[in-house]
Amino acid sequence: MNLKDIGEFGFIRRISRGCVTRPDAVLRAIGDDAAAFTIDPDEIILVTTDLLVERIHFLRTATSGFDLGYKSLAVNLSDIAAMGGTAREAFISIAIPGDCPIAYLDDFYAGMKHLAADFEVNLLGGDTTSSKDDLIINVAVVGSVPEEEMLTRDAARVGDRICCTGHLGDSRAGLHLILNGIEADSDELQELLTAHIRPLPCLREGRFLAQQGSVHSAIDISDGLSSDIAHIVEESDVGARLYADAIPVSSNLMKFCERFTFDPIPYALAGGEDYMLLCTIRSDAVEKIAEAFRGEFGKPLFIIGEITDSKKIELLNPDGSITECTPSGWNHFKEEC
Amino acid sequence: MNLKDIGEFGFIRRISRGCVTRPDAVLRAIGDDAAAFTIDPDEIILVTTDLLVERIHFLRTATSGFDLGYKSLAVNLSDIAAMGGTAREAFISIAIPGDCPIAYLDDFYAGMKHLAADFEVNLLGGDTTSSKDDLIINVAVVGSVPEEEMLTRDAARVGDRICCTGHLGDSRAGLHLILNGIEADSDELQELLTAHIRPLPCLREGRFLAQQGSVHSAIDISDGLSSDIAHIVEESDVGARLYADAIPVSSNLMKFCERFTFDPIPYALAGGEDYMLLCTIRSDAVEKIAEAFRGEFGKPLFIIGEITDSKKIELLNPDGSITECTPSGWNHFKEEC
Repeated sequence: MNLKDIGEFGFIRRISRGCVTRPDAVLRAIGDDAAAFTIDPDEIILVTTDLLVERIHFLRTATSGFDLGYKSLAVNLSDIAAMGGTAREAFISIAIPGDCPIAYLDDFYAGMKHLAADFEVNLLGGDTTSSKDDLIINVAVVGSVPEEEMLTRDAARVGDRICCTGHLGDSRAGLHLILNGIEADSDELQELLTAHIRPLPCLREGRFLAQQGSVHSAIDISDGLSSDIAHIVEESDVGARLYADAIPVSSNLMKFCERFTFDPIPYALAGGEDYMLLCTIRSDAVEKIAEAFRGEFGKPLFIIGEITDSKKIELLNPDGSITECTPSGWNHFKEEC
Repeated sequence: MNLKDIGEFGFIRRISRGCVTRPDAVLRAIGDDAAAFTIDPDEIILVTTDLLVERIHFLRTATSGFDLGYKSLAVNLSDIAAMGGTAREAFISIAIPGDCPIAYLDDFYAGMKHLAADFEVNLLGGDTTSSKDDLIINVAVVGSVPEEEMLTRDAARVGDRICCTGHLGDSRAGLHLILNGIEADSDELQELLTAHIRPLPCLREGRFLAQQGSVHSAIDISDGLSSDIAHIVEESDVGARLYADAIPVSSNLMKFCERFTFDPIPYALAGGEDYMLLCTIRSDAVEKIAEAFRGEFGKPLFIIGEITDSKKIELLNPDGSITECTPSGWNHFKEEC
């Protein structure tokens, strides 16, 4: 079956099922000129949006519809997590080329709805249109947070400890497998692949951290640790020293790096698409928060560095030497996919 | 100058100037993981989004950057107008091909900021990325409206009068000139062109109508009158009879139709991209509201038909005969640009 057989409105009816899983605050979903809903009047509104373009962000031949739908939403939920917020409503714009089968699109919406349901996010509207060649997706997510709990990039203070909610570099390793056509022939490689195609947004971790009071700033690690710490450093007008020894590298990534002869620390530092949260915490509160974090989530909050007044990003090497660290993550227009 | 010279973050800094013209409710604009703002707690939140793709919605060679920026925002503001709302914050995602000059993009943001300032809409965030071939734009707009004033498509009642806030068909005539390479060699043709490239969203008219109490339903005319009345008819489970004689045709369109031998009524009925508001008003209130509308805006509110229980859309012809009217507007996937 082809999109031309069912038309724009037939397609919208088809994808509308199962979009609203938390109906209480929804006044209008798909089907009017705009969606209408309410947010707790004690909270402020958060909005983030991401545009994904075929041949830039993904290859349709290498990405299942399900994974594409999942990840298109996940990267936006991660931005809400980085503000300490709760994700509420998602809006999906999609431009579909004539050669894209309905089965692929069904799969796309299944992946998106799967993740949306996990975090009680409604798919409340969007836009559906055609394109000449590339599948194009824009996701906008509305979230909310109590104003006093909002986490921003510009609030890091000298002396803060730099923390991270999970292992880094796994996603980049998964992407390496895909781009080089390497079969994931072991559980380890399979898990690296999963880290790349199904990142779990740290919404629960973000809410937890936002409620702790002593967490000063946060960002999600999308471009890579060394790039994203640079955003905090720049916006907060501080410096940062990362402890090379403390950068969390999974055993999967260790094995991957052995096999393909990469150095794991630079790999994890550059990374990209990790979607862990990076935050800075008042030094006298960090141990207690890390302990509570472990109690809540059964995993460590990694303490990976400290905020300094140097205005530079430095790496404390295992031998005690200090080297300056340059951001090496993703920057559109300067690099190409 | 090329995008590669300034990079993604340089470009974001460049376009960030002048984005926030109404700062009072803004806590975070461009530069963090998400934008943060407040909405009057007595109002509900409206969100609409539109995706525009080169070679589907516009030709870069035939559209100035300014006009493209203006219209990308205008179509979204029109959706907020159709809900009776006030537009508040806009989020612009843009994917830029390597051959797109910065001058074109500067012009694009100038057009968008020009319209945004007119309606006190902030440009509060978005996403910037690259694309292989086509310029791609997604605009999401957040608005608000007091719940009891929200105008929807499903509230038309039998006996309501169908009204329209302006002339129809002008935009389609303007598009005809562009697509056929006809020079706009008179003031009349120039004004038709303007109707197509610089539609003025009816936000003020929408707010006025929303506050009248007896306005039951509304939609903006984007696909064409005959298509958009069909949405009200379907959602409200009613019928509609349009009076052919009353369909508002501008003198410019009359002259255009004479010159290019079109029949003005079918032309205005099918139209498309008019961005006037279509609404239904309780019959005993319509005259008074139309009078107040003229007092407020110095232009008529056109009464162009009535809501019936027929479940059909009919056209009352000048000779008194009635014909069934089939929607003839735009439907993606069924037709091609």
